[in-house]
Amino acid sequence: MKVNGFACKAGAVTSDDFYFKGLAVAGNSSATPYGSVVTAANVVQVPGLNTLGVSLSRIDYAPGGVNPPHTHPRATEMIFVLQGTLDVGFVTAAGNRLVAKTLAAGDVFVFPRGLVHFQRNAGDAPAAVVAAFNSQLPGTQSLAAAVFAAEPEVPDAVLTKAFQVGTTEVEKIKSRLAPKKS
Amino acid sequence: MKVNGFACKAGAVTSDDFYFKGLAVAGNSSATPYGSVVTAANVVQVPGLNTLGVSLSRIDYAPGGVNPPHTHPRATEMIFVLQGTLDVGFVTAAGNRLVAKTLAAGDVFVFPRGLVHFQRNAGDAPAAVVAAFNSQLPGTQSLAAAVFAAEPEVPDAVLTKAFQVGTTEVEKIKSRLAPKKS
Amino acid sequence: MKVNGFACKAGAVTSDDFYFKGLAVAGNSSATPYGSVVTAANVVQVPGLNTLGVSLSRIDYAPGGVNPPHTHPRATEMIFVLQGTLDVGFVTAAGNRLVAKTLAAGDVFVFPRGLVHFQRNAGDAPAAVVAAFNSQLPGTQSLAAAVFAAEPEVPDAVLTKAFQVGTTEVEKIKSRLAPKKS
Amino acid sequence: MKVNGFACKAGAVTSDDFYFKGLAVAGNSSATPYGSVVTAANVVQVPGLNTLGVSLSRIDYAPGGVNPPHTHPRATEMIFVLQGTLDVGFVTAAGNRLVAKTLAAGDVFVFPRGLVHFQRNAGDAPAAVVAAFNSQLPGTQSLAAAVFAAEPEVPDAVLTKAFQVGTTEVEKIKSRLAPKKS
Amino acid sequence: MKVNGFACKAGAVTSDDFYFKGLAVAGNSSATPYGSVVTAANVVQVPGLNTLGVSLSRIDYAPGGVNPPHTHPRATEMIFVLQGTLDVGFVTAAGNRLVAKTLAAGDVFVFPRGLVHFQRNAGDAPAAVVAAFNSQLPGTQSLAAAVFAAEPEVPDAVLTKAFQVGTTEVEKIKSRLAPKKS
Amino acid sequence: MKVNGFACKAGAVTSDDFYFKGLAVAGNSSATPYGSVVTAANVVQVPGLNTLGVSLSRIDYAPGGVNPPHTHPRATEMIFVLQGTLDVGFVTAAGNRLVAKTLAAGDVFVFPRGLVHFQRNAGDAPAAVVAAFNSQLPGTQSLAAAVFAAEPEVPDAVLTKAFQVGTTEVEKIKSRLAPKKS
Repeated sequence: MKVNGFACKAGAVTSDDFYFKGLAVAGNSSATPYGSVVTAANVVQVPGLNTLGVSLSRIDYAPGGVNPPHTHPRATEMIFVLQGTLDVGFVTAAGNRLVAKTLAAGDVFVFPRGLVHFQRNAGDAPAAVVAAFNSQLPGTQSLAAAVFAAEPEVPDAVLTKAFQVGTTEVEKIKSRLAPKKS
Repeated sequence: MKVNGFACKAGAVTSDDFYFKGLAVAGNSSATPYGSVVTAANVVQVPGLNTLGVSLSRIDYAPGGVNPPHTHPRATEMIFVLQGTLDVGFVTAAGNRLVAKTLAAGDVFVFPRGLVHFQRNAGDAPAAVVAAFNSQLPGTQSLAAAVFAAEPEVPDAVLTKAFQVGTTEVEKIKSRLAPKKS
Repeated sequence: MKVNGFACKAGAVTSDDFYFKGLAVAGNSSATPYGSVVTAANVVQVPGLNTLGVSLSRIDYAPGGVNPPHTHPRATEMIFVLQGTLDVGFVTAAGNRLVAKTLAAGDVFVFPRGLVHFQRNAGDAPAAVVAAFNSQLPGTQSLAAAVFAAEPEVPDAVLTKAFQVGTTEVEKIKSRLAPKKS
Repeated sequence: MKVNGFACKAGAVTSDDFYFKGLAVAGNSSATPYGSVVTAANVVQVPGLNTLGVSLSRIDYAPGGVNPPHTHPRATEMIFVLQGTLDVGFVTAAGNRLVAKTLAAGDVFVFPRGLVHFQRNAGDAPAAVVAAFNSQLPGTQSLAAAVFAAEPEVPDAVLTKAFQVGTTEVEKIKSRLAPKKS
Repeated sequence: MKVNGFACKAGAVTSDDFYFKGLAVAGNSSATPYGSVVTAANVVQVPGLNTLGVSLSRIDYAPGGVNPPHTHPRATEMIFVLQGTLDVGFVTAAGNRLVAKTLAAGDVFVFPRGLVHFQRNAGDAPAAVVAAFNSQLPGTQSLAAAVFAAEPEVPDAVLTKAFQVGTTEVEKIKSRLAPKKS
Repeated sequence: MKVNGFACKAGAVTSDDFYFKGLAVAGNSSATPYGSVVTAANVVQVPGLNTLGVSLSRIDYAPGGVNPPHTHPRATEMIFVLQGTLDVGFVTAAGNRLVAKTLAAGDVFVFPRGLVHFQRNAGDAPAAVVAAFNSQLPGTQSLAAAVFAAEPEVPDAVLTKAFQVGTTEVEKIKSRLAPKKS
C-alpha cells in the first residue's frame, strides 16, 4: 500500500527502514562545476520517514566550493558545520536584505522556508555540513540552473528583462549552464 | 490584541475589514523597468484575512512587459487572465523542466508552491491577471534582484560559480539591478 | 498512483495539468432557478492542483440573480468582481451578525471559512466574479437545498422546530426545492 | 501573554486550567424554543485547552426537542449518547444526501467537518450527549437563525430566491425567529 | 481506493460508516492486570472518520483499577467522567510537575498532546469515562510495557541507568510485565 | 511584539538571530547520573527559528552513557552520529516492538513522533550526535523521571499497578530518581 505516494509498511517495518549510512563518507565535491555536492537522506533513501516530516542531507565543499543560490520549496533548513569554514547567507523576501555569517566547525545557522540561500567554503581545507529539513522531501531548486538551464529554455525575452542585460550575456550564461549533451 | 502578528478585532470587525477596492484599477506598469506591476490584496490591505489563509493580487503588464522569475515562499499561486495574452511558465525542482503555456483572457494556470515562475505579455495590448494565493501573506522573492541586488551584496565568488561566468558579467548585472541611490 | 485520492503524475505532468480554459466564458445563469451559475476550476478540472491547496471558480449572475446562502466546509473564499454590481454578505457564527457590502467591478471581498454567505446581482446587467479558495476541493453546501431538498428528507419534526413554522410552510418549501423527477 | 488570542500561562498553570465541572448537570432544555440546550467546554471555559485542538460540549434535549440544523466552521463533531433516543443526521455537500441514524444510549456518531447536521430527541424521556470536536473553539452556526434572524437582515430578495417562496413565507419565518426585543 | 492508508468510499458511504455501538457496554476491566480496559472508536472501527481528525474511546475501571501512565503520540485527550470517582494527572515535560485532580461524574479534564498521564479509580464502585482525541488514530504507548516488556528487550544496561537501580529490580519488573507465552 | 509566544522581530532581525555556536563543544556528559547530556539549539537559543518548525540538539555520551528512554511530544527526531558507536532504538505503540540498531559515525536513524526511544554509548570512547527535530521547540519527557520523580509524586497505587511490583521497588526507584534537595 502507498500512503502519501510512498510505501506504507505498517507492521512490516524493520530497523533498516529508519537507518541510512550514506552520509558517513564525504561526497565527491570535485565532480561538479560548483565544488560542492549534496547527499540526501530523505524519504527516498529512508522509507521509514514517510509521513514523519523531517529529513537530513550532507553537503561537502572543496576549498572555494560553492553551494549556489537555491531554495527549498517545502522546508526550512538548519545546518550544523561538521568541519571547515563557511560563508553562508540568505536573502529576505522583503527588501532583498542579505543575512550572512561566517561559520566555523560546530556552528549552526538557519535558512528560513522558501528563501534564497547559499554556502561557500571560505577556507583552504574541505568543509562539510549536516543539514536538517522539516519535510520528508524538501525539494531543491538551484536558481541559476532553473532560470538559465531549463528545458525547454526560459525565453530570452524574459531573462533580458529580469536581469536587465542583453541577449549576449543571457546566451553566454545559458551556454555555460546548459545540460551536457552526450 | 494581536493574533499571528496582526490585529485581532473579533466582535469589532466591520465589512470594510473584508473589503478592498485597490485592485479595480490597473497599476502603472510603465513605472518599473520590467513593464509589470503587482498590486496586493493580502492581510496588510485586508485586515479581515488574518488567520484565514488566502489572498489575491492583481498584476498588470505593458506590451512586452515581464513579471520576472520569482518564487512565493509560502503559497501556491493560481491566476485568472483578465485581459491580454501571456506566456507563462514554472520550472520544476527535479530536472529543471519548464512547464509553459500561452494564455488568453479567461484562462487559468497554476504555479506550484515555492517554484520559480514568470509571466510575459506576449501581445500588443496591456494584459492583466488576478492571482490567488493560499496564504494571507505569501511573500515574493524576485530572483534576479535577490541574487544580484541584495544589500549587502552576495559575494562575486558565489555568483561567478553559480552562473559560471566571470566577474565582468556579474558586476554588469549587479550594476543594472542595483537599487537606485538618491 | 493515487495521492490524496487523486492522480499523482509526478514526472509525467504536462502544462495542460496546470491549465484550464473553462472559466473564460460566462456560464448560463438563466439555466437555474436562482439566476446564477458556478463554474469550478478545482482539482477535478485541473489535476495539477493535487496537494497544492488552492482553487478558483467563476460565478455568473443574471440581473436579480442570487447565489443563495451556502457554506464551503473546507475553505475561505475571496472574490474579485469581474463585472456588474453585487450585494454580498456573510453571517457571523457568534451573534448572527450580517457583514454586508455592495461591490462594484474590481472590488474584492472575503467570506471566512465555513460561514454562511451569499451574493446577489443588484444591477440591471449581468455580473460575474472570480472566486479563490484555499483548498483544492472546497466543497459547497447550499443551505436551503441541504435542509429542504435532502434525500431522504430531513424530518418535518426537525424543520418545524428549526424554522418555528408549521408543516404547511415546511412542505411548501420542500415542494418548491424538490429535485425534479424525470 | 497571549498566544492564539488566549492567555498563555506556561509554567503558571494549575490543574484547574485543565478542569471543568460545568458539564455534570443537564442544561435547561425547556428554556429554548427548540427544546435543546448546548453547554460548552472549550478554550473559553477551559483555558488549558489553548493550542491543544480539542474541546467538548454537552447537549440536553427535552422529549421532542431538536438541535436544529447547524454547522461547525472549524471542526468535525463526534457524539456519545449519554441517555435517551436520538434521530440524527447530516447532509452531504455533493448531492444533498441525508446520512441518518437512530441512536440509543452508548452509541456514537460522526458529523464531518463543516456539514449541516441535526439531532432530535425521538423518545419520551430526556436525552443527552457528549460531543467531541477537533478544535479548541469549533464555532457553531445555526442555519435558520443565520439566514432568517441575522442583524441586519438578509434581504428578502435573497431569501425568496433561495427558498423559492414568496415574501409572505420569508417574513413569517423571520418574525418567528427574530431576536426578542426587550 | 485508499486515502491516508484507509478506505475512501466517497459517494458509497452509508450511515453505518459513521456509527458505532461498541462503546455502549462497559468493557471487562477485570480481564487485565491493571483493573482497567480501553474500548476504541477510531478510524479502525468507524471508517467514516478517515481524514476527519477526531475519535473517541471508552475506558472502564474496576474499583482500584488503574489506566497506567501512557502517552498518545498524535493527540491531545479530553475526558468526560460517565460514572465513579477518578484520580487523574499528567506530568509536564518541563520540570516533571504533576498536574492532578480528583474527578467526579460529569467532570472533564485535559491531557495535553504527547504528555505522560494516568487515571485511577479512587472509589469503591466501577468508574468509566468517554475520552475524545483530536486524531482519527491517536495511538497509545503504555510506558511500563514499552520500556520493560518490549520485544526484543530494551537492554538492561539502558534500564539500570534510566531507573538508577540494579539488574535485580529491572529483571523483576521485566518478568512481571513480560508478554504471556502460550 | 510576540508571535507564537516568542519575539517577532520582523525587519529588525540580524544574522545572530539565526546563528548559535553552543553546539560546537561537547557537553559535560559526566555531570549527569546517566552519562549523557543534551545541548539544545531551539527557538529559545535561536530566536530566528520562531514559526519555522525545525531545531537541532547535540547529545554527548560518556562511554557506557545512556540517554534514557524518553519522548518528544511535538516532533520526530532524526540523528546523525558525529563520533563513536551507539546502540539506539524506539518502541512501537502497537505491540511494543523494539526497533533497534547499532550505529557508527556518520550513520543516521529516525525516532518517529512521540514514540519512546533511547541511545547508549556502546563503545569505549566518547560518542556524540546531532539531532534534528521538526519543531521549533520539540519538548522532551524523560520517562523514568516523569513517572518516578514528578512533584507532587505520582501515587504508589498507580505505579505498583503499572509496573506490577510492590511499594518497596517503587519507593526504591523514587528515592534514586528524586530531585536533589539543597
